[in-house]
Amino acid sequence: MAASSSVAAAQALVGRAVAAHGAPHGSTPSDRLALPAAFRLSSLGGRALTSPARRLNAASPPPPRPRRRVGVRAAAVETVGQKVGATEEVLEKSVNTIRFLAIDAVEKANSGHPGLPMGCAPMGHILYDEVMRYNPKNPYWFNRDRFVLSAGHGCMLQYALLHLAGYDSIKDEDLRAFRQWGSRTPGHPENFETPGVEVTTGPLGQGIANAVGLALAERHLAARFNKPDNEIVDHYTYVIVGDGCQMEGISNEACSLAGHLGLGKLIAFYDDNHISIDGDTEIAFTEDVSARFEALGWHTIWVKDGNTGYDDIRAAIKEAKAVKDKPTLIKVTTTIGYGSPNKANTYSVHGSALGAKEVDATRKNLGWPYEPFHVPEDVKSHWSRHVPEGAALEAEWNAKFGEYEKKYPEDAADLKTIISGELPAGWADALPKYTPESSADATRNLSQQCLNALAKVLPGLIGGSADLASSNMTLLKMFGDFQKDTPEERNLRFGVREHGMGAICNGIALHSPGLIPYCATFFVFTDYMRAAIRISALCEAGVIYVMTHDSIGLGEDGPTHQPIEHLISFRAMPNILMLRPADGNETAGAYKVAVLNRKRPSILALSRQKLPQLAGSSIEGVEKGGYIISDNSTGNKPDLILIGTGSELEIAAKAADELRKEGKTVRVVSLVCWELFNEQSEEYKESVFPAAVTARVSIEAGATLGWEKFVGSKGKAIGIDRFGASAPAGRIYKEFGLTAEKVIEAAKSL
Amino acid sequence: MAASSSVAAAQALVGRAVAAHGAPHGSTPSDRLALPAAFRLSSLGGRALTSPARRLNAASPPPPRPRRRVGVRAAAVETVGQKVGATEEVLEKSVNTIRFLAIDAVEKANSGHPGLPMGCAPMGHILYDEVMRYNPKNPYWFNRDRFVLSAGHGCMLQYALLHLAGYDSIKDEDLRAFRQWGSRTPGHPENFETPGVEVTTGPLGQGIANAVGLALAERHLAARFNKPDNEIVDHYTYVIVGDGCQMEGISNEACSLAGHLGLGKLIAFYDDNHISIDGDTEIAFTEDVSARFEALGWHTIWVKDGNTGYDDIRAAIKEAKAVKDKPTLIKVTTTIGYGSPNKANTYSVHGSALGAKEVDATRKNLGWPYEPFHVPEDVKSHWSRHVPEGAALEAEWNAKFGEYEKKYPEDAADLKTIISGELPAGWADALPKYTPESSADATRNLSQQCLNALAKVLPGLIGGSADLASSNMTLLKMFGDFQKDTPEERNLRFGVREHGMGAICNGIALHSPGLIPYCATFFVFTDYMRAAIRISALCEAGVIYVMTHDSIGLGEDGPTHQPIEHLISFRAMPNILMLRPADGNETAGAYKVAVLNRKRPSILALSRQKLPQLAGSSIEGVEKGGYIISDNSTGNKPDLILIGTGSELEIAAKAADELRKEGKTVRVVSLVCWELFNEQSEEYKESVFPAAVTARVSIEAGATLGWEKFVGSKGKAIGIDRFGASAPAGRIYKEFGLTAEKVIEAAKSL
Repeated sequence: MAASSSVAAAQALVGRAVAAHGAPHGSTPSDRLALPAAFRLSSLGGRALTSPARRLNAASPPPPRPRRRVGVRAAAVETVGQKVGATEEVLEKSVNTIRFLAIDAVEKANSGHPGLPMGCAPMGHILYDEVMRYNPKNPYWFNRDRFVLSAGHGCMLQYALLHLAGYDSIKDEDLRAFRQWGSRTPGHPENFETPGVEVTTGPLGQGIANAVGLALAERHLAARFNKPDNEIVDHYTYVIVGDGCQMEGISNEACSLAGHLGLGKLIAFYDDNHISIDGDTEIAFTEDVSARFEALGWHTIWVKDGNTGYDDIRAAIKEAKAVKDKPTLIKVTTTIGYGSPNKANTYSVHGSALGAKEVDATRKNLGWPYEPFHVPEDVKSHWSRHVPEGAALEAEWNAKFGEYEKKYPEDAADLKTIISGELPAGWADALPKYTPESSADATRNLSQQCLNALAKVLPGLIGGSADLASSNMTLLKMFGDFQKDTPEERNLRFGVREHGMGAICNGIALHSPGLIPYCATFFVFTDYMRAAIRISALCEAGVIYVMTHDSIGLGEDGPTHQPIEHLISFRAMPNILMLRPADGNETAGAYKVAVLNRKRPSILALSRQKLPQLAGSSIEGVEKGGYIISDNSTGNKPDLILIGTGSELEIAAKAADELRKEGKTVRVVSLVCWELFNEQSEEYKESVFPAAVTARVSIEAGATLGWEKFVGSKGKAIGIDRFGASAPAGRIYKEFGLTAEKVIEAAKSL
Repeated sequence: MAASSSVAAAQALVGRAVAAHGAPHGSTPSDRLALPAAFRLSSLGGRALTSPARRLNAASPPPPRPRRRVGVRAAAVETVGQKVGATEEVLEKSVNTIRFLAIDAVEKANSGHPGLPMGCAPMGHILYDEVMRYNPKNPYWFNRDRFVLSAGHGCMLQYALLHLAGYDSIKDEDLRAFRQWGSRTPGHPENFETPGVEVTTGPLGQGIANAVGLALAERHLAARFNKPDNEIVDHYTYVIVGDGCQMEGISNEACSLAGHLGLGKLIAFYDDNHISIDGDTEIAFTEDVSARFEALGWHTIWVKDGNTGYDDIRAAIKEAKAVKDKPTLIKVTTTIGYGSPNKANTYSVHGSALGAKEVDATRKNLGWPYEPFHVPEDVKSHWSRHVPEGAALEAEWNAKFGEYEKKYPEDAADLKTIISGELPAGWADALPKYTPESSADATRNLSQQCLNALAKVLPGLIGGSADLASSNMTLLKMFGDFQKDTPEERNLRFGVREHGMGAICNGIALHSPGLIPYCATFFVFTDYMRAAIRISALCEAGVIYVMTHDSIGLGEDGPTHQPIEHLISFRAMPNILMLRPADGNETAGAYKVAVLNRKRPSILALSRQKLPQLAGSSIEGVEKGGYIISDNSTGNKPDLILIGTGSELEIAAKAADELRKEGKTVRVVSLVCWELFNEQSEEYKESVFPAAVTARVSIEAGATLGWEKFVGSKGKAIGIDRFGASAPAGRIYKEFGLTAEKVIEAAKSL
């Protein structure tokens, strides 16, 4: 079967899945997590991963209809500046439809944010009706333009636009179920709930950084795969940011990098409405945003009347597209709550329903005679072309991909892997293997061996560090740096911008199922990027967080640099894997798990200091989360269980050796990933931690809170419940009592 | 005794304490935490707090010597631009002394960052020798100029300067103990280890935000207390920031606010050396920093040769001081590792020892014939004037304060409270009290009642929200907004800048012991500011974090806004109190604890939704961290213990009522603050949780991990181990099983 067919088939399959998803909404949120199979890769390993791929190949291609579509595509693309879209009347009506869908949904829920949709409806209309290229019946079409609503509280804007454009995910009943249990229209845009929503926003500033990631991914793939005769990767990324996003540091980080990299196909609309929750932005935010963006290397444009200046918005987009070497910020001055006679331009319209009286007044003011949730027929009819146009765009692209594949089969195979998310057969064999005789090494170095091995077999692996590449050991040696003029390379240089880095990686991961972004800093600085990491977990972006210097073992840099509470704080976070490998095999195992879990991010906590290769460690063990690395007992009845993770597993093993010399039967357990261990069968768990054995000692260079779960009320947890100290690592370990002697002492006290 | 004497006495006392601190360094870090009593207020309540204050009043005033000092002060102030400081020769020698102290200390430790001190030695010398006003023998003198090394890895610069200036905290042996166990010269500057260091830096960007807080505190106190005839508050805040700080989002947040507020006495030196850890900043950081700062409302100056352009540095400082309505950024282009013939201007000099060979080469290159750690006599002699000059500055200020107090006794009393940190007698009586008959209310509203009650009795209470004042309920009603033209007001408007807000509050708290900053956002957005909160905990800044919307109880905003793992993640963080009050009395108790703990920050997790006033809740109970709110058993032997916190305590109480109807004896425990409970006596803990009672059920709308500690291996923890959902709050509680029925079901299953 031709590869182009399989790509087309993926889209057909997705189309069906999306349609099937339009089932009654009584399902629980976890039910609804069962989205299109090809794009909902299991988080649990290779078995599940191969199955959607097989289904993908089994489907048949849609009928090719290349000729007609070319014209349609051109029209869709060139609408901007030519006003071949709606008539003035229908345009006004369409914009007001968007406003009232937002007003009505918020009113019905008595909860939500009407102000932004009312002010941004004009730019929203122009984007979705005249500018963007997408296929409503396949929200996952690879070459679609991406849209991000960074000011996510205004989500009714996006829901209204998806509804008008013909997405199956937002039907009339979905609009009416806004912010209700089990709906596809939650209080902020969530990609995992609503096909057509690219990323998960709401926490301010995340979305613009996601958009930088999406645009970066496009730039990389275009540079890597496009040919002079076939630009197979070619889309824009549009984003709407509000004042709140602009105040957040993360947006400055991400936009500084976007300017540095010259991401010309990133176009940001700044909804300059002068109102935030606490009132006029005059009370806290008087900087010159456009001047700041110019300093960051962006092109800037100001649309002075975003409420009615349709042509100005169109002209701005045209200008932005013409500037190819810089991202563009279009500052669009709007009126929040435009149309509401008594609440427009006040904070009261930002985050509350207008109230029945003001809704009536707004209806009168804007000349809107319709019932709530009504879409006038001429508006409906005007938007109806997007379904056939979108199908045509996709079909045309599929044909183009067919030509690409004939001429460039190897590149096409790599690109298909990236588009589908199907991992190449046997990829995990590339992971290095170690024996107890292999030389001792820091897990950060072993991590680099894994990354470099994987880069050879995973075409979608791309990443880097927040200015610590030489400490985190994250450079891919066979590739150069992704820079403005070398975007085909795969080493990203994020600068000291941890928070932006995390959110950019979320954008990369959500761009294409087969892109596997990794990023790195010191483990303690996950604190800088925690909001982005949490969104990785929530929005199912399989980012790999390479976090080195994972304990007091980093030594002299002292307590500001030494994580203590970080392991437990991530173990408590839903849908993320916190892995702390102890040696080479466990590091390889951690990477195997991380790569397989495309819908669940992984954090690898890695040592700065050298660690021995332990007897009994294994990749398979890591996949179970916890396992026995040594035991001299029989019948599942050791006198004692010692439990360790990462750099302290060595200490547990040493203590066990000593205790065995004294005749004890001792089991040593590596608890490398609590989340995976918790998912094992009760039988397996009992085989590792028999309930009858209550003499248990754990050792880990971190907070002891949470360890009660495994050592039980009769066991002892050795750890650190204070801040660290600045001194050579060995000295701190000794002073803090993280030694084999202390383990033996604790064991004997039980 | 005259009040002025007590202020002077505080300084005398501190002087002695600092001298006494120069004891042998074999002590453990926790020993060394016992710093000057007056500035190490106990974290455990009012008893300890009164004692240093008493000692303070008991000491006798130093002899007044006002006349001679005035001239000295003028010389110190006006050195800039007049070159009345060192001769050219001594200046060069002094600058090289700084360079070589850094080189030698890093070399001896074989760890550290020599590059920055070598490049920044000229500006460091000018600041500490010619510009800044301080008293080396009392690092805590209230009116001192503040200095922050935001690029904290270059700490040897500051240690060398403190050493030359005559601070007792950095003796020759301290320099030689750089980065060693128990030293006062840790790997990054730590205010709690080293008197003379104002804040704790290292995590990049924190320091500049701290500096904004210090400058904001000065501006506030000056506006509030200065009189036309007596400017009793009058100092500058200087900060050195590196490229790394500039890339971090937090610095943009804080600097945007500093520009908005026009903090004219904040002067930042940007060490523009073009090198970060990964190499030339060209690889990731090509924005125009000065243009960005201009956009943020700063005055900017460029010193093109920071290596030898002493006069340019002096002129820049003079110009910066002349601009009174804007903060100033002085971009100083330097050479990292200046003087090292083979490593200067490369990343290899950033974070590693030069190596013996290169140290020799640098000695030759800079004409430095001395042994390691040598300070030439003429340099020593030149710097020696700072001890008498500093004493004179302080004595002069003390005299000025005496005059102030005579003329403005009420203001003087308030200012003294702020300077000393002594809480006014009976302040806690102002806290509101509630009975079960008091109306149900959200704890965020009860929090506002507490804040407004406390603002009347605590002159140092100042704070605000990150653009959520009307949601967090943090406005002090009797005060206006702190704006550029009204800095005497006490409501801060941080804008949507959570990370900057936290670090600014750290700066405010560390400006004066009696300043009590509070700041607010939604609890989930602690993720945005976690790095700053951790530094609050580490550097002992008693910030009060008012975190509302503390669970799925916020409802429709959905999972991006609903905290799950946050309670446990802060319970695991050292030296911070995580409080989750259940009603009015508990909210008042949380504030009592938070105000008393001036060396330990507090986080208050508060509900959006209404909660009833519970029978049995009390301030005293909160002070113990956990306590029984109801029990129908006798002999410390209930059938069952139900445990709750915050909004779920009501559910536990309801379940208990039902179970008691069925004849069970049930105890209900409020575990409002785990950290405080853990500090209680074993007897008290046993009286609440008798070991013999293993039937225990906890309920909390957060992660269950960690609850094993209290429910034990036979109990059950009801909580949430997944992300939240967007729906009305009541529906989510029901769907997630957080109900009295589920508690009863769990109880019966035990």
